[in-house]
Amino acid sequence: MIKISILGATGYTGQELVRILRQHPEAELVGLGTQQFAGRPFSGVYPHFYGLVDMICEAVDDPRLVERADLVFLAMPHGLSAALVGDILKMGKKVIDLGADFRLSSPAVYRKWYKTEGPAPDLLKQAVYGLPEINREKIKTARVIANPGCYPTTAILGLAPLLKNKLIDTGSIVIDSKSGVSGAGRGLSVNSLFSEVDGDFKAYGLPAHRHAPEIEQELSLIAGEKITVSFTPHLLPMTRGMLSTIYVQPLTPVNLSMVQELYREFYRDEPFIRVYPQGQYPHTKWVQGTNYCDIGLNWDERTGRITVLSVIDNLVKGASGQAVQNMNIMHGLEETLGNNKIAVYP
Amino acid sequence: MIKISILGATGYTGQELVRILRQHPEAELVGLGTQQFAGRPFSGVYPHFYGLVDMICEAVDDPRLVERADLVFLAMPHGLSAALVGDILKMGKKVIDLGADFRLSSPAVYRKWYKTEGPAPDLLKQAVYGLPEINREKIKTARVIANPGCYPTTAILGLAPLLKNKLIDTGSIVIDSKSGVSGAGRGLSVNSLFSEVDGDFKAYGLPAHRHAPEIEQELSLIAGEKITVSFTPHLLPMTRGMLSTIYVQPLTPVNLSMVQELYREFYRDEPFIRVYPQGQYPHTKWVQGTNYCDIGLNWDERTGRITVLSVIDNLVKGASGQAVQNMNIMHGLEETLGNNKIAVYP
Amino acid sequence: MIKISILGATGYTGQELVRILRQHPEAELVGLGTQQFAGRPFSGVYPHFYGLVDMICEAVDDPRLVERADLVFLAMPHGLSAALVGDILKMGKKVIDLGADFRLSSPAVYRKWYKTEGPAPDLLKQAVYGLPEINREKIKTARVIANPGCYPTTAILGLAPLLKNKLIDTGSIVIDSKSGVSGAGRGLSVNSLFSEVDGDFKAYGLPAHRHAPEIEQELSLIAGEKITVSFTPHLLPMTRGMLSTIYVQPLTPVNLSMVQELYREFYRDEPFIRVYPQGQYPHTKWVQGTNYCDIGLNWDERTGRITVLSVIDNLVKGASGQAVQNMNIMHGLEETLGNNKIAVYP
Amino acid sequence: MIKISILGATGYTGQELVRILRQHPEAELVGLGTQQFAGRPFSGVYPHFYGLVDMICEAVDDPRLVERADLVFLAMPHGLSAALVGDILKMGKKVIDLGADFRLSSPAVYRKWYKTEGPAPDLLKQAVYGLPEINREKIKTARVIANPGCYPTTAILGLAPLLKNKLIDTGSIVIDSKSGVSGAGRGLSVNSLFSEVDGDFKAYGLPAHRHAPEIEQELSLIAGEKITVSFTPHLLPMTRGMLSTIYVQPLTPVNLSMVQELYREFYRDEPFIRVYPQGQYPHTKWVQGTNYCDIGLNWDERTGRITVLSVIDNLVKGASGQAVQNMNIMHGLEETLGNNKIAVYP
Repeated sequence: MIKISILGATGYTGQELVRILRQHPEAELVGLGTQQFAGRPFSGVYPHFYGLVDMICEAVDDPRLVERADLVFLAMPHGLSAALVGDILKMGKKVIDLGADFRLSSPAVYRKWYKTEGPAPDLLKQAVYGLPEINREKIKTARVIANPGCYPTTAILGLAPLLKNKLIDTGSIVIDSKSGVSGAGRGLSVNSLFSEVDGDFKAYGLPAHRHAPEIEQELSLIAGEKITVSFTPHLLPMTRGMLSTIYVQPLTPVNLSMVQELYREFYRDEPFIRVYPQGQYPHTKWVQGTNYCDIGLNWDERTGRITVLSVIDNLVKGASGQAVQNMNIMHGLEETLGNNKIAVYP
Repeated sequence: MIKISILGATGYTGQELVRILRQHPEAELVGLGTQQFAGRPFSGVYPHFYGLVDMICEAVDDPRLVERADLVFLAMPHGLSAALVGDILKMGKKVIDLGADFRLSSPAVYRKWYKTEGPAPDLLKQAVYGLPEINREKIKTARVIANPGCYPTTAILGLAPLLKNKLIDTGSIVIDSKSGVSGAGRGLSVNSLFSEVDGDFKAYGLPAHRHAPEIEQELSLIAGEKITVSFTPHLLPMTRGMLSTIYVQPLTPVNLSMVQELYREFYRDEPFIRVYPQGQYPHTKWVQGTNYCDIGLNWDERTGRITVLSVIDNLVKGASGQAVQNMNIMHGLEETLGNNKIAVYP
Repeated sequence: MIKISILGATGYTGQELVRILRQHPEAELVGLGTQQFAGRPFSGVYPHFYGLVDMICEAVDDPRLVERADLVFLAMPHGLSAALVGDILKMGKKVIDLGADFRLSSPAVYRKWYKTEGPAPDLLKQAVYGLPEINREKIKTARVIANPGCYPTTAILGLAPLLKNKLIDTGSIVIDSKSGVSGAGRGLSVNSLFSEVDGDFKAYGLPAHRHAPEIEQELSLIAGEKITVSFTPHLLPMTRGMLSTIYVQPLTPVNLSMVQELYREFYRDEPFIRVYPQGQYPHTKWVQGTNYCDIGLNWDERTGRITVLSVIDNLVKGASGQAVQNMNIMHGLEETLGNNKIAVYP
Repeated sequence: MIKISILGATGYTGQELVRILRQHPEAELVGLGTQQFAGRPFSGVYPHFYGLVDMICEAVDDPRLVERADLVFLAMPHGLSAALVGDILKMGKKVIDLGADFRLSSPAVYRKWYKTEGPAPDLLKQAVYGLPEINREKIKTARVIANPGCYPTTAILGLAPLLKNKLIDTGSIVIDSKSGVSGAGRGLSVNSLFSEVDGDFKAYGLPAHRHAPEIEQELSLIAGEKITVSFTPHLLPMTRGMLSTIYVQPLTPVNLSMVQELYREFYRDEPFIRVYPQGQYPHTKWVQGTNYCDIGLNWDERTGRITVLSVIDNLVKGASGQAVQNMNIMHGLEETLGNNKIAVYP
């Protein structure tokens, strides 16, 4: 059994980790660290765990949380991970960081977008970007995982087959993304109130969202050239789920069968990617509570553009489920362990 | 492995059975019968099962569905089960009926509320009302289970401790129930359209709903006297979840601690009942996707009335999860097998 | 033109007042006072008013807001109105208070439920409980209106015809109420977050809610005897709308036609009450954005109980629309002026 | 008073016409034609009109509906308007068609996308595309109005300033649109059920939606050259509201201030267009129930692309409100008459 502590266990991604790990056959929760609720039973903060996870929350900075664990998950606001990760590594433990601090490999880019200093360069260098479908081999031996953002997960998985094969005009990429509200976390904000969100739809994060440089960094690595994208996030009046609609111009004429075949082949052995048959397009609800990224493809003969539709549950494949997938890879376990296979529907 | 066919697999309770049984370690799905979709892969009707349950649906009246199975689940509109159950029993197979046809032990009462003839009396007599917390012993040896309705499940579990102990004025019972829309099934009706339900709340089924006689029959059995209740169902603008608010007048003065203790004791060994601590009241979302019935208790010193708040997921403990719980009991398996333990939240 | 200032204009009831009064042919907004947004244009706080109400918000305690006005609406948190009302009256202006401070005629009861001192007795005595269907004559000459709470509005209007005619056992009243989330206001609370409320239903305010004494006070006045009720509020996963399901036991046998006739007669000349025909029951969405209270009636021959279903928009007839109705009465205007007649549906 | 009949009064756009026209000071409803509900009071089909519009529905093909009227609104499924419009014109009455039959000026294009024969060419020629901001002069004297589709309304109003001024690469247009469910009407379909739509988001209408040729026809007219666009519609889990996110590449370098100024100037005198200040982006809920089209602008210095965010209520500016705006123009009335100015919020 892998002994696990979660720092930041009472945010939405934290409690989602608890859900998945509590049902994981090879994991044991040994510590739940929080900033607000130390001393209270976890099921007092999230009563759906009543009778299931009644262990007492501890102060997030209590070193015993790390001592007890083999692996630490960080689900903290950005800016707090750098110091924590350093300490955890010194104590000889591995860490999966669900925050943003280790995702950007350039300290300058991090500073520009997050308005704060990021991790020290030597620490940063140890981090592996934890997108298994792209970086599986590196993840196996990593000590620090930078777990990808939710938007980047849809964008990268949606574009990788095309970019890897150099099939598209890299200047033509438009990523129009829509997310459920849980992505904003449990923090208090007028923008997250039910009465404001219910029955409403809007773009946000304009002129440019922090996930844009993360998307561009990883797409550039895949393509082998510098890529800039148009990216607009929107907020859906629903709790979970994310869909990115991605528009690209191919460099040479294609047709839909070719594109379908390319994606099928690229993701053939991936347990968490489902490429839909021609003419079928993914719904966010079909992956709810699961670690799938579902992909549908379209090609418009009139404009020549390819449209990729890429869908995840933002709290699972976009956060905690992917983190557990990374944990499984790091520990040589079957990659799908712990994650639900079937969405609760409708 | 128990071989299972589901007749009526493509309604909401049918597909929920598929979800639970597909993940059940001792069950194997051998047939999915439908009225509308024979010849299509199940994942074509419900694409969230894509890659998980791609087996082909068959015509619901194909006898091979029964032949192949050890146990048959019926998830059919009322009025269709009577003939099917007779045939299934003749073929030596057991059956769990999620419909209403075998729930009312009086053919006259059935006729009055359902406007059609019910099962033949000798067939009806074999049916056991499948509420494990009340009828577990009978379920163990039953060949036909009448799986309870969703409203009755909340009402009976909410009132059993008080009635069993003869603590309340049986003429004082008011049951005010609220249900998510999935309880109405996948059939087409203006009343189930998103634009009609979204942002709306209403009572329905007035002057009296078909679940009233089922509630009264079972409460009367528990109390040992004829009970009549006021029961008003309402429709919530949400998909899953049911809450019943139950008001009763005690026969003698009580206080909240006494009532709490009574419920705790009554349900002490029940794996799917959670009696909440004093001052905590259940939310429907805390049991979503699970087989729990969560109960909160209140007592108003000014009126003397007890209020019981009883919560389930209408498609799980109110239908398919309870059906699988019954299956486990009938087959001597651990009662919780197959059902999720933790709600996907938020 | 009546010159109007609103103190507390940027809460939900405040901005609802702005909406109604901006379209009122005899009203002119001369001041918008807020605690948080002084100096900002109102349409900066609520951009749906962009180009329509761009006037600058002022500090809520600026006396010029009152000086400029003929009538002041208070939409403030409880505990703040007492001092304000005294000052406004001294300046010779009338006031309609949408908060709770002047609703309870007993200072002791106020203290018990609100844990703070209420208005001075001589001030309190001047307040008229502003439910036009019950107190129209007194409202005409009032200088201070205590605008009713939303729950009490549904309860009192639902029960008045029965109580006035002494038809029911006053000890038998059960009021099961359900409200949209906007009733909780725009304040920040985990309980009001979209991700918590969406798809969820729960009771709250137990063991007893502050609206209970207000309901009981007014029902007692109507009945001419002391009345105690069972009252349970619930939170609906929707923004606007409130439905109360009220159960009562008649003193003598009745039938539905008698009850229907009683209500039709009682509310015959009321412009904002619609008693539905037999067999039809109100939906919250049918009154959305309007000042109607819609009422449906049921009688269960098996238990003898009458069920009253009473529906309003909590922000209109439950708050701001009723306040404007009161304003119209106080100023001798047509009572319906300013309020929308037709819900925007679906 | 303009005498008005509505053919197809009981669909969502039909009942929205009833709402607006019932409150219009210069309009009188003289006939409500329906395919399903002839003989029933309108308020029996839509009870929110109870006491407000109780007139009896008539058969949609009863010629007396037209005889009585000065102006006929058609809110019928496509394919049915052609014959009706011919008859109405012969009877000397004007007509506003909210359906698709008269929107496409090429019979061949109509046939290709609607798989049926459209109106006769001489009839078709008389129709004016009823987008007031573009075609106001022609609308004044029109006898047949083809009321625009909802998606085209957002796309054309969002792009007209740029195209009219030849500022963009016309091959670069990507229109990513999201609509509330009411756009699908009140017809019965599994895809419109609450349980399917709630908490879900998806693209639909792929590979290409019928509104694409309508968008392209009108954009081409404005630009003076043939335009082809990428257009993907999506379905939002909400009832009303539509947002289009439009991406274009300018032909020469621009900046945001220039673009802002261009839109401000272009729409300066338009009563129903609100161009938002720099840095503010529209929400669908801010225009709910109103006839506004709200526009927000963004420019990404990294890609050089302009992003236009264009928002309407699909049933108002996207259908019935725009139809009444056209009526006002045709009859020399003030253009804003009848339409609500302020959204009911939240």
